[in-house]
Amino acid sequence: MDETPPAFDAAFQSRLCDLFAWRRDVRRFQRTPLPAGTLERLVSLAALAPSVGLSQPWRFVAVDDAARRAHIRSNFAACNAVALAAQASERAALYARLKLAGLDEAPVHLAVFADRGTDQGHGLGRHTMPEMIEYSVVTAVHTLWLAARAEGIGLGWVSILDPVKVAEILAVPPAWKLIGYFCLGYPAIVDDTPELERGNWERRHRTELIRR
Amino acid sequence: MDETPPAFDAAFQSRLCDLFAWRRDVRRFQRTPLPAGTLERLVSLAALAPSVGLSQPWRFVAVDDAARRAHIRSNFAACNAVALAAQASERAALYARLKLAGLDEAPVHLAVFADRGTDQGHGLGRHTMPEMIEYSVVTAVHTLWLAARAEGIGLGWVSILDPVKVAEILAVPPAWKLIGYFCLGYPAIVDDTPELERGNWERRHRTELIRR
Repeated sequence: MDETPPAFDAAFQSRLCDLFAWRRDVRRFQRTPLPAGTLERLVSLAALAPSVGLSQPWRFVAVDDAARRAHIRSNFAACNAVALAAQASERAALYARLKLAGLDEAPVHLAVFADRGTDQGHGLGRHTMPEMIEYSVVTAVHTLWLAARAEGIGLGWVSILDPVKVAEILAVPPAWKLIGYFCLGYPAIVDDTPELERGNWERRHRTELIRR
Repeated sequence: MDETPPAFDAAFQSRLCDLFAWRRDVRRFQRTPLPAGTLERLVSLAALAPSVGLSQPWRFVAVDDAARRAHIRSNFAACNAVALAAQASERAALYARLKLAGLDEAPVHLAVFADRGTDQGHGLGRHTMPEMIEYSVVTAVHTLWLAARAEGIGLGWVSILDPVKVAEILAVPPAWKLIGYFCLGYPAIVDDTPELERGNWERRHRTELIRR
């Protein structure tokens, strides 16, 4: 143990609940760049996330190149057109009106991969549930998301992409599996209601604890 | 928008970093029960997590029944014996010395599933990456984990289990996929160093941001 454990008091606990409640999946960004070093700092916080066997399988790739970004945008457009065509006819118009990504405006594009080939952790905890590698990366993404929101920075998770194509566009090693593609920047709107609820797509339901 | 957005100041941001740094995967618990209503409250906070298409696919199952807990424990013992046998000979003794679960002492057992059959969210964001359902549940687990730690409650993620057997033992619907089995309770040790690092299994490495 390095030091005295911090005490998380009632005021912090309450603020933490606010953070959970006001974290949003942001799709409307200001074009203002983030201060230099912000992304590096957020990534170092993300690395405090739990990982199976201490494998730290997360791989963070900032996408700066304009041509690569253009390829990602056109892949999104193609995948979104397929998804729109698959919608039930009565929901298609509603789907078409949703804004599902901020790829044009967000100053930062971040692709996050899980390195399924890593030896770090020596396989511990992965025998019966190999998907723990992917789940570890998701906790790192969520850590980054919360840290960003606490600084007033929004994140949007784009999953309407072909994950294999994204890996090709970014020329990453074959063992890396795309977990998500993320837009980051200052949000144009700050809200405690999800964008999909404001867009009448879906509403939140109460989560009940089941007992066995 | 319901109200004025909260301002997350520098003091909160710093405390949040402490929370990330002092969250642990806990395997050594006190047997003291949690106060009544604690688990329900933590589950309601977990439901503030992001979910693909607002699908809220998380299913939280508290395991209270002594016979079911005994079945889980024996499944863990069997899976752990297989994992030990698969270790390289020079690491087997080290593996055998690790404490990998707190199933005997933890007052609360919680199984968390992803409902891959849910219609909520109308399939949005799941066409090219159906695994987004599982990832949404992981963010809910991580939310619960952080909220618990802020209250001084530890959580340990047990993945050395046969996920299909666990679903059978708990008699859940066939579309539910096990994401993890969790022990919760007051930790016997509070530390900012991972148990696997203290046990000389693995150490943390620096995470670098890659650019493309």
